Parts: sequence; structure tokens; C-alpha cells
Amino acid sequence: MATITLKRPVRAAAWAAIGGSQEAKGPLAAGFDMLEEDSFLGCQTWEQAETELQRRSLHRALEKGGMAAADLDMVMSGDLLNQCIGATFALRDVDAPFCGVYSACATMGEGLLLSALLLDGGHLNVAAAMASSHYCAAERQYRAPLPYGSQRSPTAQWTATAAGCCVLSRNGDGPRVAAVCPGTIVDLGVKDMTNMGAAMAPAAIHTLTAIFKDTHTGPEDYDMILTGDLGKLGHDIVVELMGRDGYDLRTNYHDCGLLLFDRKGQDMHAGGSGAGCSAAVLCAWVLPKLQRHELHRVIFAPTGALLSPTSSFQGESIPGICHGVVLCDD
Amino acid sequence: MATITLKRPVRAAAWAAIGGSQEAKGPLAAGFDMLEEDSFLGCQTWEQAETELQRRSLHRALEKGGMAAADLDMVMSGDLLNQCIGATFALRDVDAPFCGVYSACATMGEGLLLSALLLDGGHLNVAAAMASSHYCAAERQYRAPLPYGSQRSPTAQWTATAAGCCVLSRNGDGPRVAAVCPGTIVDLGVKDMTNMGAAMAPAAIHTLTAIFKDTHTGPEDYDMILTGDLGKLGHDIVVELMGRDGYDLRTNYHDCGLLLFDRKGQDMHAGGSGAGCSAAVLCAWVLPKLQRHELHRVIFAPTGALLSPTSSFQGESIPGICHGVVLCDD
Repeated sequence: MATITLKRPVRAAAWAAIGGSQEAKGPLAAGFDMLEEDSFLGCQTWEQAETELQRRSLHRALEKGGMAAADLDMVMSGDLLNQCIGATFALRDVDAPFCGVYSACATMGEGLLLSALLLDGGHLNVAAAMASSHYCAAERQYRAPLPYGSQRSPTAQWTATAAGCCVLSRNGDGPRVAAVCPGTIVDLGVKDMTNMGAAMAPAAIHTLTAIFKDTHTGPEDYDMILTGDLGKLGHDIVVELMGRDGYDLRTNYHDCGLLLFDRKGQDMHAGGSGAGCSAAVLCAWVLPKLQRHELHRVIFAPTGALLSPTSSFQGESIPGICHGVVLCDD
Repeated sequence: MATITLKRPVRAAAWAAIGGSQEAKGPLAAGFDMLEEDSFLGCQTWEQAETELQRRSLHRALEKGGMAAADLDMVMSGDLLNQCIGATFALRDVDAPFCGVYSACATMGEGLLLSALLLDGGHLNVAAAMASSHYCAAERQYRAPLPYGSQRSPTAQWTATAAGCCVLSRNGDGPRVAAVCPGTIVDLGVKDMTNMGAAMAPAAIHTLTAIFKDTHTGPEDYDMILTGDLGKLGHDIVVELMGRDGYDLRTNYHDCGLLLFDRKGQDMHAGGSGAGCSAAVLCAWVLPKLQRHELHRVIFAPTGALLSPTSSFQGESIPGICHGVVLCDD
């Protein structure tokens, strides 16, 4: 049984989401704490800008929660940059224990579930989970430098320029982490780097099915089931394949990659992606809705494609992972 | 207080270390489970070979412990390759929950401490922590492709071609994880990519000092204090600076980077390094010694340089981290 039900109340005490210019044009803009038109965020490079996204989201979350960095027993953070420098450089000046986490675009799920378990186990009182991505840094690293003006495949997704930070606490009355389901790596052989939704969908199906089976629930027991960044293709694969298994996801299933951008007004092809996509959607939209009791019970299940440009150049397929976190408003 | 004392017995149930040709010539060779002359381990690329190091160390550890992958409630693993593909591709065929961890060369410490806490908290029964590095893959990624024949700085270290895997369990009578100390990132401004020992030493001092203060112990309370891969320079900095603070480390303090290779017979400059270095020294040497009661109380404190080639090219300094794990033979 992969799903772990928490024994103690572990709650989101504060959270923040920072986005870029495309996020500012998207339907969730109002939920962001800060939206930056400048893709450099005042820095010299896009990698430094991504670090700045993480730094700001952490400090904004702490500020909203009336906390200081000294109150943090742990920060768990990661990103898509080589050697996770978005996270490590953001934490350089923060005097709190740090554990780097990496599950590609499912990183926020991993940080959230590990933090929640350490609080539930009584080892920590306050922990922050955080993740980011930056469109320009990701394009340069994974695909081609932006000035090349490369054409994008219709199945490709748009990496969010965003970060989300959620501070968990054993106190307060914020949204509660009820259960978590650490993902298992699933690789069905998809090799197309420009269709990561298809590569990640089997992992999402694995985790959602595990949560339903382990907790004896079905889609109807949740207001919302939210995968990470499968985009249009991955979303439709999940609906179809889970439907065959008797799970009807047609009414309350969404994908962070489809929520972050306006797919008609903004030309994002298959939707948004990146570790910052699910992290920001969680902090800009899901947690506020739980806080206002507009949602009651949500599965937050970010998905990650565990590839690197090197692995794809070497002809490897794309392993996927999906970490599940059940959030409640009670 | 950063140090967390475990409440329940969490024990190393099985472990394995795999090394390459240089490790086979080193003083710890006899402790390795497998030593491979072929740097490709039968694969097409060095990245695939690193994946193979992880795969073999996991399966060998499971085999030694009389376990199967299905017995694992969690695998926590990471490596130095971009997007941690050494870990993720090794776990592709393993049907167990996975959390990617990244603390550069301190990754084994992070995986071990998080696994131990999740077992202590009662959330898991069996978890594996694992890390790897590969000399050829690391040189290509961090410095220059091997065929260039680049000269190495005297302060440079040699990345181990090695992996270590430790399976923790709530049962058995193996070496026990008594306490853990998640590291805090420390960056004192060192920018020299070829002198990472100096960059990481302040983080080691931070963590060792925290353990001594938090647990009211001193160096004399341990048979051995072992940092990750500071090498000769970092080791000497730790001895000197901690000596000024009243901690005499001259007798029982060692560094994994100085133990793995024969510094006179093998031309390793400042010593060994890489995420596989501390992981392999732990599994080939420390855990067996604890198991045979030749050691009784050890601080295992691997150190990591949280840089990337990109961050250094952009003129950044090198943030360091050190995760501490206290191991006992009782």
C-alpha cells in the first residue's frame, strides 16, 4: 500500500506564488502574490532569475504567515535546472536546514509529501516545500536557446516562469494534508521529448489508482483531482484509460498545465509545464480555494518526466512519476 | 536545534557498494561487493554505466538482505548527473515508491536521514538510500570530456566511480541510526571549482558543531567522525577551524575522500569526491566495521558542493551543505 494517511493535523500555514509575464495573462493571475513582467527579475541571467523566483516565494510565504526563516525546521525545494541551482542558490542566505528534492515537474509534490510526513512523525514543527521553473532557462537547457526561434511541436508544452512555496505547520487552521502517496516510476517507452504528457500519463494513472484503492475512495469523493502538468494530451489519456478501469474522471479532473494559461488566448500548444507550474497552481489557486472552503477535498498529483537532454540524445525513453497529496479544508 | 534524535530503533538491514577500476586499486577494495574494470559496465555510455552502478548496488543490497524490491516502501536516491538520471533510470524497473534527493556529494546523507526519519515516524518499514557518481560522466559534465586530456589542479579531487546502497529497516540487529542532522547551506564566497574542499568545509563545520552542541557531545564521544569528500584541503580546514572552537579533531576525524584512494600510490591530487564516494565508503567500510563492532559510534557527515557548471560560469560562489547521521553498533 503506497498511500500513507497522516495521524496528526498537518496544515498549510502560509503560501505564496510568483509568476512571470505569461502567468500574468493567464486565468489564475489574480491568485498570484507577485507577477513580474521582467523575465530577468532584475538579475543578470535567467538562472539567477529562477533563483530569485524561489527566494521571493519563500520570503513572501513567510511574510504572509507572520514567520521568519528562523522558524523553519526544514526547507525542501527543487527545480529543473542542472544540479537544482534554482533551489540551492535561493537558500544560500537562509539559515534553515535544507533537503534538495528532485522529481522533475512533480517536485512540489515530493517536497510537500516529505515535509508533511516529517511533521506528522513529530520530527519537525514547521517546514516549507517549494519548486520553480523558468521558461527561458528551461528552453536553453532542454531544447534550444530562445534566440534560435525554434519551432515548437503541437504536442509541446510551455514551461511556466513561476514558483510556489507552501509552509506546513502542526498548528493553525489552514488546509490540511490528509494523506500522501509517493509515486512509483513508470516508463512505458515513450521517447518523444516534445510529448511529455503522454510519457507522464501512466505514472499519474498509477498514483491516482493507488490512492483510490488504498483509501477506498473514488473520483466522486473529491471536489477536484488535479494532475501536475500533463497538458491536453496527457489529460485526455488519463481520462480515457482510467475510464476503462471504471474511474470516471470526466467531471472533476483537471490538470495544472491546462489551468495556468488561457489555451485559446495564449498560444501554449498542449498547455503549461515545469516544476513551477503545479507549485504555482497549488499556491495561487488550490490552497486559497480550500482556505475559503470553495473546495473541500482535493487530490494534488503533480507529474514529472524524469528525463534529461542527455538521456534523450542517447535514445532512452522517458520515465514518469506522479506524487499524490490529498488536501482537505477541515 | 537541528539535530533530531530518533525515538525508535532504525537499523541498516543490508548494504552494498559497487566500484570501478580505481576503487579496486584503493585501500578499501576488499569491502566492495563488486569492482568493475570496464568503465562502461557493459553499457553504451558512461551515463548508462552510472545507472548500472545504482541498479547493481540496489539489487546486491536487497539480495544480501534476503529481500525483494517489493519489500521496499521507498527508495531515496540521487546523483550528480543533470536531472539525476543515474537514479531515475536505475529505478525505472523497480516497483517501489521513489523520492529523488539532491545534495550533490552529500546526497547519501540526505537519503539516509530522510529514510531514517520516515521509519522512525512509523510511516515506512523498509527504505533504501542510494547515491552514485561516475568519474568519466562527471568529467564530461562538470569539466571537460576525457579525450581532451585536461590538466588537473593540485587542489582538484577525483570523482569516484562508485555507488552505495543502504537498506534501512525497523527490524533486525544491524547498525543503528541514532540521530540525524539535516544540513544548512553555507556559502562563504569560495568560487574556485577546482577547490571544492575549501568551499564545503564551512558547511561541515556548521553541521558537526550543531551535532556536538545539540547532543551535548564532543569528538571524544565518537570512534570516528567522517566527513564526505572534503579531500586533503577541506579536511585540514575543518581540523584547524574546529580546533580554534575547542573541538580537537586530530585523532578520530577522517574524510571519505581521503580513505577511498591511496593518495601516494594513486595520483588523486586532493582526494576522492563525488556522491558515490561517501556512499561507497559508508557501505564498503563504515557499516561493515559497525556490524563487526570494530566501531561503536560514528558521525557520517557527507558534504556537497551545490554548484553547477552554469553557476560557476556565471561567476557565482559555491554553496556547501553537510548532512550528519550518527550511527551506532548497539
